[in-house]
Amino acid sequence: MNKSEWDVIDLASGIFAPSRKDVVVGAGEDDCAVVELGNRFMVLTSDSVRESTDFPPQMEEWEKGHMSLAVNLSDIAAMGGEPAYFLYTISMPENFWPEEFFRGMRRLAERYRVDVVGGDTDRCNELCVSGFAIGFSERVLLRRNARVGERVYITDLTGKAQLSLDQLLSGMSREEIAYPEKLYTPEPRVEEGLKLSSLASACTDISDSLAVSLHQIARASGVRIELRSELVDLSPLEEFVRRDRAMELFLYAGGDYELVYTCESCDGMEIGRVVEGKGVFMDGKTVEFRGYRHF
Amino acid sequence: MNKSEWDVIDLASGIFAPSRKDVVVGAGEDDCAVVELGNRFMVLTSDSVRESTDFPPQMEEWEKGHMSLAVNLSDIAAMGGEPAYFLYTISMPENFWPEEFFRGMRRLAERYRVDVVGGDTDRCNELCVSGFAIGFSERVLLRRNARVGERVYITDLTGKAQLSLDQLLSGMSREEIAYPEKLYTPEPRVEEGLKLSSLASACTDISDSLAVSLHQIARASGVRIELRSELVDLSPLEEFVRRDRAMELFLYAGGDYELVYTCESCDGMEIGRVVEGKGVFMDGKTVEFRGYRHF
Repeated sequence: MNKSEWDVIDLASGIFAPSRKDVVVGAGEDDCAVVELGNRFMVLTSDSVRESTDFPPQMEEWEKGHMSLAVNLSDIAAMGGEPAYFLYTISMPENFWPEEFFRGMRRLAERYRVDVVGGDTDRCNELCVSGFAIGFSERVLLRRNARVGERVYITDLTGKAQLSLDQLLSGMSREEIAYPEKLYTPEPRVEEGLKLSSLASACTDISDSLAVSLHQIARASGVRIELRSELVDLSPLEEFVRRDRAMELFLYAGGDYELVYTCESCDGMEIGRVVEGKGVFMDGKTVEFRGYRHF
Repeated sequence: MNKSEWDVIDLASGIFAPSRKDVVVGAGEDDCAVVELGNRFMVLTSDSVRESTDFPPQMEEWEKGHMSLAVNLSDIAAMGGEPAYFLYTISMPENFWPEEFFRGMRRLAERYRVDVVGGDTDRCNELCVSGFAIGFSERVLLRRNARVGERVYITDLTGKAQLSLDQLLSGMSREEIAYPEKLYTPEPRVEEGLKLSSLASACTDISDSLAVSLHQIARASGVRIELRSELVDLSPLEEFVRRDRAMELFLYAGGDYELVYTCESCDGMEIGRVVEGKGVFMDGKTVEFRGYRHF
């Protein structure tokens, strides 16, 4: 995401400030919008992916369908929500027949009891998919709820997707790269999110980078996040790259769709603490606000 | 909409057959998906528009924002629903700044108490907008509910949008064309849909053409629809074109976003009757299944 896309989010947040009483979280504030619905919450998200920037080389058609749904389910998971319905719009080249694409989407949808209930189709010179997912939650996990004293966790080590992409771009085949499933069929952390919904305070998913997600939590919660490198086992990355590159991938690479969350004591991979102050640091050094998820 | 886009809808309807018990109407069956939610229904729709095929020449930026929301609210209106929430994804060229676009969207949203609660942004060589709208209804108006003996109505004469476009393409200015508001700022028939929700049987909106919408109702309901030309006052079109062209615009032109519905006796412009049989006819002659809405 480049600078001007953040500007557009700010613009939209200003113009589309919520006016309905049932809207708890509006545009641009969190991973999903949140509306009150009787005694529970409905969470709503939209996310788009396109061939030229989001689908890695050698991706199968069914994996594109999987990915288009997965990025949206990841947003629902980040709220501690149970996904229920999905709609898409697909723009595709003349010669594209979306049967395998739809089957990949359907397979992932079934795994989480999601019904794909609507869609719209038009023509474009590249494949572009916009997704819209709806879920429900008894208690939502917001970025702004991190509290001083909590631990910071992630569901799995970040950086594996980008590592795998780097390998692919250096000439390896799909069969040779380290973590093909992280690159081609990222699993939305729906089950983990549901478990966390009664335990964690703040949560967000990691699409741009761990660094960006941590900054979002720190800023929304008015806290400082301190990571400790000794807690982080980088060996799944260090098997393939030097330690400094592994650390760069861990902090700044995108596309993993893991969750990062704060909690007194939870399951997960502990990476640091919430303390008073602001910003994000590792071993006392600033963690920058930057990331990338577009291939 | 060309032949292959209908094929894609059929493919999606097969692959995405509903599996959840709360899904009453699934993908491709009607203007919106319908899910049961306690003692009422939630209606969900997605629709996309793009610069090259959906925005007429000389359209203002704010009108593009209006249109992107209006086409989705029209689907909600066609179900007799009250719209509540809207999300979008926008793909835009590097030099495009969406402030006026968002303001036009916001103005229409406010008119119907809709909150724009989410969005996603990326880059593309043309402006493409996907919209997702959510509404609620006590009683939904489905295409399949037309009954023999009912009258067929429309909310206003169709053909005005295409007439205005034809005039524009023939060299007239925005100020000279007959119905600029029908072309640039179509008003979704939300209020009419809400009134009809307790009165009408079948309903759909007219995006491709009146003919296509009537065929959809006739086929879904297992009935024949007979139009009578003597009921139809074509004079708003005949002021500008010959009668045969006016009739062509009335039946086969798109982009008006009026509602067509069946009812024992309702307000509206009566155009025909529901009888036993199948197909759509006017004065005994076949009305073809064809239409166009892309400019």
